[in-house]
Amino acid sequence: MTSTATPAYDELAATCRRLHHLEHLQSLAGWDQAANMPPKGNDARAAAMAEMSALLHRMRTEPAFGRRIDEAEQEPLSDLQRANLREIRRGWVADTALPESLVQRRALATARCEHAWRTQRPANDWAGFVDNFRAVLAIGREQAGLLAEKTGVSRYEALMDQYEPGLSCAQVDRVFGEVRQWLPGLIQQVLDHQRTRPLIEPVGPFPVAAQRALCDRVMRLLGFDFDAGRLDVSTHPFCGGVPEDVRMTTRFTEREFLGSLMGTVHETGHGRYEQNRPRDLLGQPVGQARSMAIHESQSLSFEMQLGSHPGFVALLAPMIREAFGEQPAFEPGNLQRLLTRVKPGCIRVDADEVTYPAHIILRYEIERPLIEGEIEAEDVPALWDAKMQELLGVDTRGNFRDGPLQDVHWPEGLFGYFPCYSLGAMYAAQWFAAMRRAMPDLDARIARGDLGAVFDWLRDHIWTQASRWTTDELARRASGEALNPAHFRAHLQARYLGC
Amino acid sequence: MTSTATPAYDELAATCRRLHHLEHLQSLAGWDQAANMPPKGNDARAAAMAEMSALLHRMRTEPAFGRRIDEAEQEPLSDLQRANLREIRRGWVADTALPESLVQRRALATARCEHAWRTQRPANDWAGFVDNFRAVLAIGREQAGLLAEKTGVSRYEALMDQYEPGLSCAQVDRVFGEVRQWLPGLIQQVLDHQRTRPLIEPVGPFPVAAQRALCDRVMRLLGFDFDAGRLDVSTHPFCGGVPEDVRMTTRFTEREFLGSLMGTVHETGHGRYEQNRPRDLLGQPVGQARSMAIHESQSLSFEMQLGSHPGFVALLAPMIREAFGEQPAFEPGNLQRLLTRVKPGCIRVDADEVTYPAHIILRYEIERPLIEGEIEAEDVPALWDAKMQELLGVDTRGNFRDGPLQDVHWPEGLFGYFPCYSLGAMYAAQWFAAMRRAMPDLDARIARGDLGAVFDWLRDHIWTQASRWTTDELARRASGEALNPAHFRAHLQARYLGC
Repeated sequence: MTSTATPAYDELAATCRRLHHLEHLQSLAGWDQAANMPPKGNDARAAAMAEMSALLHRMRTEPAFGRRIDEAEQEPLSDLQRANLREIRRGWVADTALPESLVQRRALATARCEHAWRTQRPANDWAGFVDNFRAVLAIGREQAGLLAEKTGVSRYEALMDQYEPGLSCAQVDRVFGEVRQWLPGLIQQVLDHQRTRPLIEPVGPFPVAAQRALCDRVMRLLGFDFDAGRLDVSTHPFCGGVPEDVRMTTRFTEREFLGSLMGTVHETGHGRYEQNRPRDLLGQPVGQARSMAIHESQSLSFEMQLGSHPGFVALLAPMIREAFGEQPAFEPGNLQRLLTRVKPGCIRVDADEVTYPAHIILRYEIERPLIEGEIEAEDVPALWDAKMQELLGVDTRGNFRDGPLQDVHWPEGLFGYFPCYSLGAMYAAQWFAAMRRAMPDLDARIARGDLGAVFDWLRDHIWTQASRWTTDELARRASGEALNPAHFRAHLQARYLGC
Repeated sequence: MTSTATPAYDELAATCRRLHHLEHLQSLAGWDQAANMPPKGNDARAAAMAEMSALLHRMRTEPAFGRRIDEAEQEPLSDLQRANLREIRRGWVADTALPESLVQRRALATARCEHAWRTQRPANDWAGFVDNFRAVLAIGREQAGLLAEKTGVSRYEALMDQYEPGLSCAQVDRVFGEVRQWLPGLIQQVLDHQRTRPLIEPVGPFPVAAQRALCDRVMRLLGFDFDAGRLDVSTHPFCGGVPEDVRMTTRFTEREFLGSLMGTVHETGHGRYEQNRPRDLLGQPVGQARSMAIHESQSLSFEMQLGSHPGFVALLAPMIREAFGEQPAFEPGNLQRLLTRVKPGCIRVDADEVTYPAHIILRYEIERPLIEGEIEAEDVPALWDAKMQELLGVDTRGNFRDGPLQDVHWPEGLFGYFPCYSLGAMYAAQWFAAMRRAMPDLDARIARGDLGAVFDWLRDHIWTQASRWTTDELARRASGEALNPAHFRAHLQARYLGC
C-alpha cells in the first residue's frame, strides 16, 4: 500500500467497503427470505443471518476502528471525507452504545412479544399483550437511556436519531403542533367537500398476471431501471438490495388492484432513490440514503405527490384499461376521486393522505412520554381513545385490535420511527413546492407525461446528495428552508379543496 | 462453556458451523446471480462474493485451526467424530496447500482464458485459445505439483482428489481400460440394433408454462420436497443452496421439451441427495455429500437408471400428454426409443448414455499427460482427432469448435473433474444392480409407480451416509464391492440390446 496523508481515514474507508460487501449478502438473504424461501429453509436461514449479524457487529465495534476515527479527525480531509467521517462516527457511537447483553435481551423480549402479538391482536387481548410489552418497553427505555448518554440528547430523541439523525423533539413538537391546529378542521372541510362526489367502484376480479404487467409498465414510466433491479412478491412489501441491484416487492389480491399498484408506485420511489445514490461513494456511510424521513419523502413524492396528481392519473387510466378492459370506473376523473377519497378510520396503514398525520401525531404523543417514563403501558388505551376522538372523531373504545394493537412497531420495540412517515409526507410536499417555483409549468409537464423534470430535480437535489449533508442542510439546499409543514397544508388544500 | 474431554475437536466443530452458515449466504448469492440478478448488479455481486471468499479463506486457513486438528487427533473421539476430523484435515490440507499469490494468478489467468474462449470457440480459433491456455495449463501444473507434495500422490491424482477424494490413476486406468475394450464394439452393436427402429419426433412448440408445470409434477413424482427447495431458470442448470433449502435450476426452449425435462430429472437426483443429507451432521464436513462422482451417481440414477427405464417412461407418458396434448410421439414405447437413441457425435453434453464414456475417456487420456508434462497444449488437436476416430469413428479434423474447444472446464482450469461424470454413471448402474439383488421385483415396482423402494435404498445407502466413509468403503457397504464397471456394461446391454 502506498503511503498517504490520511492513513487512518483510508483504513476506515476500506473497512466500510468490506462491511458494505458483506451487508450486500445479508440484504440479499433477507430479500430472498421474504420473496423466495421455502418454509423448511427458515431455521437454516435464520442461523446463517444471525452468524453474519454477529460477524458484522464484531467488525463494526472493533476497538481499533474507534481509534482510527479519532486519528482520522486529525488528518487533512476534504469536505466530503469529513462528511463521511461524521457519518462513520455516528454509526460507531450507535453500534458501541449498547452492551451485547442488552442487545440479546432485547432480541428475546421483542421476539416473544411480537410472536404472541400475532394471535393477541386478532383476539383483542390487550391484557395478554401488556404482560409481554412491559419487558419490551423497559428495555426500550434502557436502550434510550444508554444512547442518550452517548449522544447528549433526550431519551426519545436518542431513539428517533437512529432513523432520522439530528431530529429534535422541539422540531417535531413545532411541526406536529402546527399540523394539530389545522388538521381536524381541514379533514372536516374535505369530508363536506367530498360528501356528494359521484364515485364508481372498479369491478373485479383483477387477474394477478395483468396486475403484475401493469406494475411493470408503471415502474418503467416512473423510470425504474429493470437492468438494475427487480419486482417480486412478498407478504409485506419492501425495497431492499443494493443500488446496482434493487429488490422491490409488492403483493397482489384479485379483489382489488389500486392498493398494490399504488404500493408499487410507493416502493418505486424508494427504489429510484437507491438506484441513484452516487456510485463513487458506494460502500461509504456518506453514500447512504440520508435518513428514513427523507426516504419516505421519496416514496411519498411518487405515491402521493405524483401518484394521485390528476395529470399523472390521466396517464395511468389508459394503462389500467389495457390491463383489465374498459370499465366506467377507469375514467380518469373517477380514478383520481378513488385515489383521493378521505375517510377517517382506525387503521393507520389504510389511512388516506389527509388523515394519515393524525395517526402519527397520536403515536408520537403516546410513544414519547412512554419512553421518557411519564406514562406506563397500562395508560395507553385511554390515551389512544381520547386522541382518536379528538383528532379523527373515531370511537375506538374496547377495540384494541384496531387500536394500540394494530402496529408491529411496538411489539418489535421500534420506538421513535413513527414520526418519519409524516415528516416524509411533509418533505415531499416541500420538494414539489420547490419544483413548482423552479418550473411554473410543472403540472402541465406531468399531465403530458414529461416526468423527467420531476426525476431530474429529485436526482440532483436528493438522490445524488446521499448523506453528504445533515437533513436540515439537505432541505435548505434543495428547497431554501428546513422542514416547513405549510407546504404540506397548501398541498392538501389544493388537492382536496381545490384552493 | 462447560469443559469437555474434546476441547480441540469442539472448537473445530464450532468453526465448521460458522463456516457453514457463511457459505450458505455465499451459495445463495451464487444461485441468485444465475437465477435472478439483473445485469447491472454483476460488479457489486462479484465484489461482495469475492469479499466473502477472502473471508472464508482466512477462516479456513487460520494457523490456530491447523493446530486444533493436531490436538484433536489426541482426543478420545467417537468413530463419527474421527471421520469428521479426517474430512476436516482433508479440507485443511487442500486449503493451505496453495499460496495466496498462486490463487490470485490462477483467478486472473482462467478469467482471461475463459472470457476470450467465449468468442474463440464460435470463431474456431484454436491458435488464439492456446495463447491464453498455456498460462492456465502452467498454473494448473504448478497447483497440481503443490497439492501432490502435500498429499503424496501423483500430480494428476492430486487434482482429481479435489473432486473425488482418494481416486487413483491406477483405479481410473483399470476402469476406463476395461470400458475401452468393449465400448466401441457395443456402440456398433447398438447402432446396428437401432438402425431400423421406427421413431416419431414430437412436434412443437412446447409452451414454457406447460413445460414448467410438467417439470414440477415430475419432480414431485421423484420425491423432491418443495417445502425445502425450489426450481428456477438459469442459463446453465445447477443445484445449489443448503439441504433445508435446495435451489435447482433448469432452462426451457419452446422447440423441444425432453432435454429440459430430463435435465430437471438429473438435477432432482442432486437435489434429493442434498435434501436428505443427515440433519444432525449439517455444517460438519462429515455431513457433506461424499464426492462429485457419488453426486453424479445420484443425478444419473435419476436421469439414466430411472429416467429412461421403460416402466418410468410409461409413468411419464400420460403427464406429457396432459401437458402438451395428444401426439403419436407420446406413445410410451416411442418416448422410450427417443430417450435411448444412440448417435456418436462430437459434443459431450449432447451425447447419449452409451457414447458418453468415450468422450470422458478421451479427455482423461489427454488431461492426464497434459498435467504430468508429457504433452503440451499444441499436441491436443492431433490427439483429439485420433481418439475421436478410434473411440467413436467421428472425424473432427479442423473442427476445434466442436473438438477441444467445446468444454468450459479447460479454459477455467478445472483439470481432473471429467472422470467423475463417467464414474458417476458406473456407480449408478452398480447401485441399481444392488437394488435388483435386494428387490428382484424392482422393475415391476417402478412400472407401477412405486418408486419409494428406489428412494429408500438410495436414502439408506448413499444420502444419509454423507461423508462418513471413503468412497470405496461407501460403495462396498452399499453394494458389496468397490467400483466395478461390469454393472454399467450389463446395464447398457440390457437396456440397449435387450440382453
